[in-house]
Amino acid sequence: MKINDRRLGGREEKNIEIFDSTLRDGAQGEGISFSIEDKLNIVKALDYVGADYIEAGNPGSNPKDLEFFERIDRSKMRHARLVAFGSTCRKGTAPENDENCASLLTANTDVVAVFGKTWDLHVTDILKTSLSENLRMIYDTVKFFKSHGKEVIFDAEHYFDGFKRNADYAKSAVGAAIDAGADRIVLCETNGGCLPDEVERITAETCETFPDAVIGIHCHNDSGCAAANSMAAVKAGARHVQGTYLGYGERCGNANLSTVIPNLQIKQDYRCVPEKNLERFTRTARWISEIANLSLFKGMPYVGGSAFSHKAGMHIDAVAKESASFEHINPESIGNERRFLMSEVAGRGTVLKKISKLAPNLTKDSPETAEICARVKQLEYEGYSFEAAEASFELLVREVLGTKKNYFTLNYFKTIVEPEENDFSASAIIKITVGDKTEITAAEGNGPVHALDNALRRVLEGFYPQLGGVHLTDYKVRVLEPQQATGAKVRVLIESTDESGSWTTVGVSADVIAASWIALVSSVEYKLMKEEKNNGYDNDAENFG
Amino acid sequence: MKINDRRLGGREEKNIEIFDSTLRDGAQGEGISFSIEDKLNIVKALDYVGADYIEAGNPGSNPKDLEFFERIDRSKMRHARLVAFGSTCRKGTAPENDENCASLLTANTDVVAVFGKTWDLHVTDILKTSLSENLRMIYDTVKFFKSHGKEVIFDAEHYFDGFKRNADYAKSAVGAAIDAGADRIVLCETNGGCLPDEVERITAETCETFPDAVIGIHCHNDSGCAAANSMAAVKAGARHVQGTYLGYGERCGNANLSTVIPNLQIKQDYRCVPEKNLERFTRTARWISEIANLSLFKGMPYVGGSAFSHKAGMHIDAVAKESASFEHINPESIGNERRFLMSEVAGRGTVLKKISKLAPNLTKDSPETAEICARVKQLEYEGYSFEAAEASFELLVREVLGTKKNYFTLNYFKTIVEPEENDFSASAIIKITVGDKTEITAAEGNGPVHALDNALRRVLEGFYPQLGGVHLTDYKVRVLEPQQATGAKVRVLIESTDESGSWTTVGVSADVIAASWIALVSSVEYKLMKEEKNNGYDNDAENFG
Repeated sequence: MKINDRRLGGREEKNIEIFDSTLRDGAQGEGISFSIEDKLNIVKALDYVGADYIEAGNPGSNPKDLEFFERIDRSKMRHARLVAFGSTCRKGTAPENDENCASLLTANTDVVAVFGKTWDLHVTDILKTSLSENLRMIYDTVKFFKSHGKEVIFDAEHYFDGFKRNADYAKSAVGAAIDAGADRIVLCETNGGCLPDEVERITAETCETFPDAVIGIHCHNDSGCAAANSMAAVKAGARHVQGTYLGYGERCGNANLSTVIPNLQIKQDYRCVPEKNLERFTRTARWISEIANLSLFKGMPYVGGSAFSHKAGMHIDAVAKESASFEHINPESIGNERRFLMSEVAGRGTVLKKISKLAPNLTKDSPETAEICARVKQLEYEGYSFEAAEASFELLVREVLGTKKNYFTLNYFKTIVEPEENDFSASAIIKITVGDKTEITAAEGNGPVHALDNALRRVLEGFYPQLGGVHLTDYKVRVLEPQQATGAKVRVLIESTDESGSWTTVGVSADVIAASWIALVSSVEYKLMKEEKNNGYDNDAENFG
Repeated sequence: MKINDRRLGGREEKNIEIFDSTLRDGAQGEGISFSIEDKLNIVKALDYVGADYIEAGNPGSNPKDLEFFERIDRSKMRHARLVAFGSTCRKGTAPENDENCASLLTANTDVVAVFGKTWDLHVTDILKTSLSENLRMIYDTVKFFKSHGKEVIFDAEHYFDGFKRNADYAKSAVGAAIDAGADRIVLCETNGGCLPDEVERITAETCETFPDAVIGIHCHNDSGCAAANSMAAVKAGARHVQGTYLGYGERCGNANLSTVIPNLQIKQDYRCVPEKNLERFTRTARWISEIANLSLFKGMPYVGGSAFSHKAGMHIDAVAKESASFEHINPESIGNERRFLMSEVAGRGTVLKKISKLAPNLTKDSPETAEICARVKQLEYEGYSFEAAEASFELLVREVLGTKKNYFTLNYFKTIVEPEENDFSASAIIKITVGDKTEITAAEGNGPVHALDNALRRVLEGFYPQLGGVHLTDYKVRVLEPQQATGAKVRVLIESTDESGSWTTVGVSADVIAASWIALVSSVEYKLMKEEKNNGYDNDAENFG
């Protein structure tokens, strides 16, 4: 497969262009809705991680997209180029007179991606036009944007299904785009149902037919093979890979670039992003999922929170001896980290490893160790999970060791929610004792947990001004045993942040307020304990970060 | 590749054995913890869907597993065979004297799966024994279980990594198992980092070396290629496929059988499960995820809730014309269904399709249609999502059409949470008016939402006894904008069930109690409306189910 070096700007054959469509195809995923602010932030994240192209939407179909293109500050983008997305002109219309084509120009990008039909079924049964008119539409549209000085990426929609049914027609559609001057021809596996062998074969035949074209690949995950299909296409000669950074996209999603890129770059020596950027991958994944307001799937390859987490006791022992024994790559190479999980499968070894970091003097046979293990087991049985709440685990260890101070005593609290005009009012009353002083206060909030949080801070800040620097940065509610519906237990995770880092605490109860209360109190206690250690109170301060 | 027909019991070459490890490898996934009851239910689900083997745990490492094997009623299993899992005997020990091997016998299964090392690094650096002693351990252990009349599945751990480093040794380990009489040799891609080409090549070479062995494949998803790798191995001659039904498993999970089986059976004409069972796939996926208490990933191929959901307006139009245009298979073939999602991307077309089911007389240009679209847009902006809450959408439509009855008026409610001895007490007071009657009542619950739910039912059942048959079957809380922590908005989804089906309602507020209240009230209203329609009140009753 010969790559047209002029078009690839002198890139060598092992160089792969990365085209991210989180903002366009990704936005079509269920449960995804980006504000303009979200889109601007995602552009930053994708630019930071090294995408070459960022497809940002369709100004014709969505006024929000138009506003986005007006507001974005292109001068701040260090590497990536913005792409506006649209379709070919309509049947019987010249691009000059087509409002979709015109609106694409208003995005004012150097690059446009234009999709056109290459599956004869779609031409005749969906567009309801002739096969030749479709070729005309493709040719004229590409020509139109070239005449406006754009770099044109032609997305050959349904190329693989089209090729299987009528290869000559699919190729002639691509040929029309090439003849009109398209800079990239992207073979789209739109329905996501193809398997790697087909993708490899069809891509290879297409590369052979058009030896001078730069061929790209765009896969969906309906057969669970989007990553493998993308790589199969690269093997066959594609040098431009489209996807979305976290696999967001309609139905089962698009090819997940945070998987495909490391596969290509770490395992097959292709160059997709600057080498140093690989370490940014996990951070970027968290960033984008945060913006999208979706929890990052823990099992996601490379960047997920569980991707290098070990739970089986035997695996943990082996990884401790030799990390390659159960890890396919070094987690740090991708900015991720190794974790040992606590669970009944893990056995005591994992708990011991965690304890030994906090209390190096304890051995396997210390009575405190047995007590900690027993408490963890009991709490996990009740619905606690310390996998993500290491601050709560540390408090538990200190409680058993007798090194946990009592910072305050709760005398009483009460939360009240009641309707108020057209809304609801939530308030909390709280009464605590510190030393020999008792204080009572009340606060309002957006809901009872927020009111309680506000009241607790207010009453404690008089005693512990250092709490002023703490912010709650995440609040998660997980319903356990949902079969019991509103009577079910809930697990609340609270993430708190101060200038030196963040920590997570957990609470479980059938009552969401009680569970939140437990996690809130632990968050405060952890902060106060951390401060004291920093002031030399504790000997093993070096074990905390 | 020739398959040993005797061992495969006369199966033809296109027959594939399915081995599910949800209960063993799946249980090692982060966040997974099965009770014995859960395990018994998952066996039912896997048997129902057509797994040939169900690996159910390790009686030696876990007392819960032992109790499971004692309690399970094998006579109720229609198709699948239970498998107990363990390792080879330890170095320097005969299987007869090894407690792990002994405990495997106590599971009392016809089939045992035994894993052994095939990667020389693991033998020397983890087990810390000689390469020849490891072969002895494999041979003796397989022989031991054969002498006890077991069918023996040998799991060649780390086979692919081992093969890449020392192919001769990896093959000699497999050879030792075969010589001792192993019935199946399963090549395990334990670290999950291999890519399809390698898996295909190494499986093919192994099949060639051992032409009479039945070869299996066991993949993990650390490169996002577990499905493609499993299929690559089948292409190379494997006829036994291991995985977990929903891909649960350590780190990034195991090969997802609910993806691999349809890929093999629908797209490549292999036979994995009885043909009629394919329609059970989606139901089984929901069932197992329910037992595991994890929400089913919406984007999961074939069985996910979004797998055949269309959001982009253009896709929706095309699918309405010709379903194959954006669907790789017919969703019904796998027991799933097509859905049209409402969103700003969808445009009016989708809302119209939904409305037309509820109010066939409305057209695109009716003022009511515009009003409904505007309300949906506003509510979605506030954080509502009707994608999963179609009952709430129906109530909204009826409200605009003026066909929603006012079943009761809320005068007042109040929820109170306060500590009580070692626990918390939650209570609710509620006052409503129906017609000219006003009632007030109070109730307690596990938390304020539960208390409110109880109070609402109690006060309404006097007026509407039909509410007695409704149960809340799911309660989900989703924190929106988690950056705002305890002040964030929450979206509550409530699923209610009566004898004729289930429906879901939604509420959004910064206050979890207010959000729950909105969804609770909608649930009650939907039920009452449904009843009236069934009593002939409404003309278009045939549109509801």
